[in-house]
Amino acid sequence: MQVSVLRNVLDANDLIAKENRKEFDAHGCLVVNVMSAPGSGKTTILERTLRALDGRLRAAVIEGDVQGTLDADRLAPLGVPVVQINTDPHFGGACHLDARMIRNALSALHLDGVDLILIENVGNLICPAEFQIGEHRKIMVLSVAEGEDKPLKYPLMFRVSDLLLLNKLDLLEHLDFDPARFRANAARVNPVLPIVELSARTGYGLEAWVDWLLREVRANATRRAPCGAI
Amino acid sequence: MQVSVLRNVLDANDLIAKENRKEFDAHGCLVVNVMSAPGSGKTTILERTLRALDGRLRAAVIEGDVQGTLDADRLAPLGVPVVQINTDPHFGGACHLDARMIRNALSALHLDGVDLILIENVGNLICPAEFQIGEHRKIMVLSVAEGEDKPLKYPLMFRVSDLLLLNKLDLLEHLDFDPARFRANAARVNPVLPIVELSARTGYGLEAWVDWLLREVRANATRRAPCGAI
Repeated sequence: MQVSVLRNVLDANDLIAKENRKEFDAHGCLVVNVMSAPGSGKTTILERTLRALDGRLRAAVIEGDVQGTLDADRLAPLGVPVVQINTDPHFGGACHLDARMIRNALSALHLDGVDLILIENVGNLICPAEFQIGEHRKIMVLSVAEGEDKPLKYPLMFRVSDLLLLNKLDLLEHLDFDPARFRANAARVNPVLPIVELSARTGYGLEAWVDWLLREVRANATRRAPCGAI
Repeated sequence: MQVSVLRNVLDANDLIAKENRKEFDAHGCLVVNVMSAPGSGKTTILERTLRALDGRLRAAVIEGDVQGTLDADRLAPLGVPVVQINTDPHFGGACHLDARMIRNALSALHLDGVDLILIENVGNLICPAEFQIGEHRKIMVLSVAEGEDKPLKYPLMFRVSDLLLLNKLDLLEHLDFDPARFRANAARVNPVLPIVELSARTGYGLEAWVDWLLREVRANATRRAPCGAI
């Protein structure tokens, strides 16, 4: 019975996710769902990314947190629209964003002229992977401090992601983390997952990630343009 | 409606948690629920702890993971009974242990003569804090690599915990983590939370944590003994 209740929750969620997707597509926004465990460096990556994108496209951010506006406050000075979602009215704090929360957040965002929405999900390697929110791409961040066994322990997150940012590379020399073993573990659950090595602290790898984003935004614009318009 | 369904799930869970607790008490086991984000070092702490406890009390471990037996396999050579719970038959992987899972695991553990059960919860800073499993004490682990803002972003976990192990202290010099600011943030959500600084890698702080465990086990034995028996 519990399982069928949860199945219904997911089905209802998928319907709203499809509505969100239609709205994003009508405005030509590429939407990227950024997921990770707590403290992997998502917000620092977004800060760096928004600075690096400066002028090349028009971005907006939706921040998901159980409580507080710490992350939104960090991004506000960057001059992009930021909407904060707090999940704590739900069940003592929902552990993921769902499609309805994004739907509600959209009422506070003007999508016209926005090329890219980066959605920072709640810090959690499990449930965010299970809930569609209407995004075009799912990416995940893993900090090397979290250990090389994570693909085997949280396989769904690695399986649904279109890109993995392996962050905090600057810490590598102080850890017992073997990148080759990590890549082998990741390949066991998702052999086609591209991995970009990154240090949001030093800027290492940032260009490769920003290039990926720019390519995805361009491809999205091409997809929606009438034949021959681009 | 969703909220009331979830309320019922939690109420049903609490009933089973009380049954678990009765069974632990009947056998004189102290049960400690160990919670944290993925990759904070729970399993390494358990390895070190079991070695450090060697001979001083009889311990058992229940391991909670979405999938796999990696953590149980790491602990098996230490010669303590280990039971692995996998949460993946639930909803693509439940993000927390609940009282029923512990109840099922107990059928595989002989509680007679066990003084202490360490339960390693699923790596997640949100939902494990919401589900009673029958434990006497809840402790949390936070790695300094996760950042000093976590108490403000995941307040329930810090509020329900009886002890915090601040792990990976050996990385401190390579991070922008200010322990004083972290302590101030933790005090804002839980002013009475004791914090033990630890490096499971080097062994720093291990003695203070093991002393806490031994004191709790002794206090538990005293509580259940008939008046004057100890």
